[in-house]
Amino acid sequence: MMKQIGIVVHGGAGTDSEHIKKNIKEYEDGLREAIEEGYKILERGGKAVDAVEAAVRKLEDNPLFNSGRGSAVNNKGEVEMDASIMDGKTLKAGAVCMVKNVKNPVTLARYIMDHTSHVLLSDHGALEFAKDQDLELEPDSYFVTEHQYDLFLEERDKDDVEELMKKRVHGTVGAVAADKDGNVAAATSSGGTTNALAGRIGDSCIIGAGTFANNNTCAISSTGDGEFIINGVIAHSIADVMEYKGYDIQRACDYVIHEKNKNTEGDIGVIGICPSGKIGISFNSERMHRAWKSTDLPLQVKIYK
Amino acid sequence: MMKQIGIVVHGGAGTDSEHIKKNIKEYEDGLREAIEEGYKILERGGKAVDAVEAAVRKLEDNPLFNSGRGSAVNNKGEVEMDASIMDGKTLKAGAVCMVKNVKNPVTLARYIMDHTSHVLLSDHGALEFAKDQDLELEPDSYFVTEHQYDLFLEERDKDDVEELMKKRVHGTVGAVAADKDGNVAAATSSGGTTNALAGRIGDSCIIGAGTFANNNTCAISSTGDGEFIINGVIAHSIADVMEYKGYDIQRACDYVIHEKNKNTEGDIGVIGICPSGKIGISFNSERMHRAWKSTDLPLQVKIYK
Repeated sequence: MMKQIGIVVHGGAGTDSEHIKKNIKEYEDGLREAIEEGYKILERGGKAVDAVEAAVRKLEDNPLFNSGRGSAVNNKGEVEMDASIMDGKTLKAGAVCMVKNVKNPVTLARYIMDHTSHVLLSDHGALEFAKDQDLELEPDSYFVTEHQYDLFLEERDKDDVEELMKKRVHGTVGAVAADKDGNVAAATSSGGTTNALAGRIGDSCIIGAGTFANNNTCAISSTGDGEFIINGVIAHSIADVMEYKGYDIQRACDYVIHEKNKNTEGDIGVIGICPSGKIGISFNSERMHRAWKSTDLPLQVKIYK
Repeated sequence: MMKQIGIVVHGGAGTDSEHIKKNIKEYEDGLREAIEEGYKILERGGKAVDAVEAAVRKLEDNPLFNSGRGSAVNNKGEVEMDASIMDGKTLKAGAVCMVKNVKNPVTLARYIMDHTSHVLLSDHGALEFAKDQDLELEPDSYFVTEHQYDLFLEERDKDDVEELMKKRVHGTVGAVAADKDGNVAAATSSGGTTNALAGRIGDSCIIGAGTFANNNTCAISSTGDGEFIINGVIAHSIADVMEYKGYDIQRACDYVIHEKNKNTEGDIGVIGICPSGKIGISFNSERMHRAWKSTDLPLQVKIYK
């Protein structure tokens, strides 16, 4: 019996904003295009890991989302990007943090997974590896959009470090997919947090927190306040709840977000998929940009609850 | 009723070597001193998080162990260090990666936990924060020992990237402790892997992989082949096995190392402790440098099985 195929993407979870309201159609279009890009790979029999990479690339290239082009600007006025990918079949993963100038950090993460024995490369070392592999590069200006630079300037004037620290302007994109062979994969990419301390690394490159995939259970991509996602080891928690409590994917996502972490002070959102193609989506924030499509479910795009 | 106190430290897991055999007494002394440093804090009613920081500092200062002074040298001839700490009471964590010149990376991780809203800082950003906080710095030469530099030179001549990638010369130090109030904490610190690609980040700064602590279950510090520890989310796996399968700490450590990850190609070792003061130790490698002491157990130091 042919398994069901499916893909879910997210474009970040958090509070609502005027910027989101004003651009709602463009956000929805971006999510839809990412689903279509990934789904067509699954439809022609392609691998889950190829589908999530393709979907995340679409979102990285879209200047509306905080990843790749359109990344947040740190407190030095620079863009430093994180990304990761994990293949639920091989349990291999690749990740990159603090990288500049690489057009598609998720593809660099994929290269690290496929062509090195390392999982996580950072900064100059990561950029050097990207150059060795002839990955597409772009100048600094490519990554910075007017919207993100305005946010940076607005925040920069708040000189109080405590206030900056508490301020949460963030975003992430991610995808999870299941292919016809019952393999799952997950990928996540982020431009970081506006006015974060330079050098701050979020959850998007942390296997277990931002990204996790295992054919025994599920593939998960997280988004929200990275620090809470790291300390809660959110993506891996969902897989373990499925494994040990026997919950289905939706119940496992809800349990980790709304019960296990119900006292968290952070925004947390997750998307998940099982080898059977069943999907799970859960978040505790005002909104999570998301879309999904599977053998059973027509394409749907949502931003609010 | 006063709870039991206890502390466990490790100084890395892997294959045996001539260097280890020749220095066995010095290694044992180093492990013993780390235990004594942490235990005296617990004995006078101090906190688990202070005990693990103090024990790891001792190991970082000891040139025999691959962390702080005595760190491995990467393929550029440089030392880049990773460390992390987590408090099982607050579920807060701090971590640092790719940092240079900071004498005690574990203390920098502690400062990040206590004084920022971030978890993980890297490289220049981390160094800048260390300077702001007046942490002790040392010149590059302080960190590089003759033994580590010889290993680097030996490996450097093997020009084949594949061969370098397969080569596993690594090491880590770590500690877990339980205090009289039933709080647990874990800390891990590493100088990385000899001749790793510059920019490679291991498990020692990854919450969930190298370090995890939660008063509901246990505190864990991992060591071995970082990439396998990251993909297996080893430290968090042990906590979840205790939570969901109800295993005690020793059985949970054994289950994750010898059953769940029995097909791993990597060396993995873990030390753990519960709020009750019960300890767990498990590894699949030839040796793991380790020592422990608790209300119940006299100080013991072991290197081989």
